[in-house]
Amino acid sequence: MIRYYWEDFTPGWSYESGAAPMSAADIRRFAQEYDPQSYHTDETAAKATPFGGLIASGWHTCAVAMRLMCDGYLLDSSCVGSPGLEELRWLAPVRPDDALRLRATVLEQTPSRTHRGRGTVKFRWDVLNQNDAVVCRMIGRQHYLRRIPAP
Amino acid sequence: MIRYYWEDFTPGWSYESGAAPMSAADIRRFAQEYDPQSYHTDETAAKATPFGGLIASGWHTCAVAMRLMCDGYLLDSSCVGSPGLEELRWLAPVRPDDALRLRATVLEQTPSRTHRGRGTVKFRWDVLNQNDAVVCRMIGRQHYLRRIPAP
Repeated sequence: MIRYYWEDFTPGWSYESGAAPMSAADIRRFAQEYDPQSYHTDETAAKATPFGGLIASGWHTCAVAMRLMCDGYLLDSSCVGSPGLEELRWLAPVRPDDALRLRATVLEQTPSRTHRGRGTVKFRWDVLNQNDAVVCRMIGRQHYLRRIPAP
Repeated sequence: MIRYYWEDFTPGWSYESGAAPMSAADIRRFAQEYDPQSYHTDETAAKATPFGGLIASGWHTCAVAMRLMCDGYLLDSSCVGSPGLEELRWLAPVRPDDALRLRATVLEQTPSRTHRGRGTVKFRWDVLNQNDAVVCRMIGRQHYLRRIPAP
């Protein structure tokens, strides 16, 4: 059932997902519930903003990246949560019919100081569009159970 | 229509929202779409995890915080987007029937170096539960139009 434990995420380990399409309807639906700024909800109003058209909420981009991570490796892992991110950058707008993919790269792998059965992994997660532009970058940590507890 | 421009977000400006309830159904619905780890989607499976029960996806907490921000001041502002966060911490689990509120505090106010009509505001955003525990903390920036362009 569990394929990836803490030990597997050695520095340089990487994963790249397939592409998730973002439709205008998806963008509006997320935004109407969580981020109803006009450039996320209304294509006509969005044209008059500096963005020149509808763009996805940054939180929608993060949520889609999370789903790509889950389907890619997280649901097959021993992950037991995340303390957070030390960087989250929205680098370029996500527009209707963009297709997003996730690239995960391990930066550091640290045993827990307090739990023999756990460790932490620091990742860079880049979200790319169909033109290979990085639209979102996250640097953060996740906690994982170890396959074999530390001695 | 616009009540808050860049000039209004002086250091120390703060806002605290009312409370948004998080139901178990809300938690599961968000997670099924964006973060289907078992401790976010399945109350029975969640009991066997280190969390001891269902908890909200951290991205759900961020999305709810964004909605509280929108309703509190952002939709009445000249906000033209965010470059991102320099810190995002998930500090405590969010559980069913928690009620979350947002506390926003301005840390810095910086005129744009390139746009006379814009500026940037650095905020701390704390998400609190009904026991006043900070469950999530974000430090980041938003860009706003100025009421009066710089000379």
